[in-house]
Amino acid sequence: MTLHRSHASYAADCPVRDVLDRLGDRWSTLVLQALADDKQRFAELSRRIDDISKRMLAKTLRGLEEDGLVRRTVYPSKPPSVEYALTELGLSFLPHIEGLVAWASKHHEAVRAARKAYARNYPGVE
Amino acid sequence: MTLHRSHASYAADCPVRDVLDRLGDRWSTLVLQALADDKQRFAELSRRIDDISKRMLAKTLRGLEEDGLVRRTVYPSKPPSVEYALTELGLSFLPHIEGLVAWASKHHEAVRAARKAYARNYPGVE
Repeated sequence: MTLHRSHASYAADCPVRDVLDRLGDRWSTLVLQALADDKQRFAELSRRIDDISKRMLAKTLRGLEEDGLVRRTVYPSKPPSVEYALTELGLSFLPHIEGLVAWASKHHEAVRAARKAYARNYPGVE
Repeated sequence: MTLHRSHASYAADCPVRDVLDRLGDRWSTLVLQALADDKQRFAELSRRIDDISKRMLAKTLRGLEEDGLVRRTVYPSKPPSVEYALTELGLSFLPHIEGLVAWASKHHEAVRAARKAYARNYPGVE
């Protein structure tokens, strides 16, 4: 992995950034995690991610579907039932999310300690 | 890694989310990557990440310093010279960023193809 050594990788038109800019947002990460175990209906996802608005959940799911990470299936029941599931591509992205979560799980106390130290050193900075 | 199986991990007050919400933003990712090789001055970072505003770069660096991932050193030259470098904690986070970048590098064509297919299937959706 030497990508980060290239100046080109920071450019706004870099294809890698084009992908990560969207998948890197917190809601996409949470939705992909929530779909890790099994397919889910919209209402289930909405309950699991308890502070996401319905509008933001719909937008996030549409983005993930557009990017090919999530598959949306409509069943012709009454009312129609809609299920969301990870695609192969979405599954291949999961380990990276889990890596981030594992890091945060291991280090969140260090991060919180650093925040406290910062607040002591720079009182009054937001 | 079973964190994603717990409903608690999605809650807004989860310490893991508290950490990832900030580090997951695109600018933090790019700044950490830019510091991967060596310490940098503000102006160097600003040139490397060509579309970040100075205000956003300052804000991102402050957040990373606050979280303990970046160390800011002021040298008493005239004018004072300020350098930014990764801390041990920042270095430990890098492999996860590189994992994301490697994934995006490998799969960005699949993502682009999925976007084109989506645009064909749902013409008119934003």
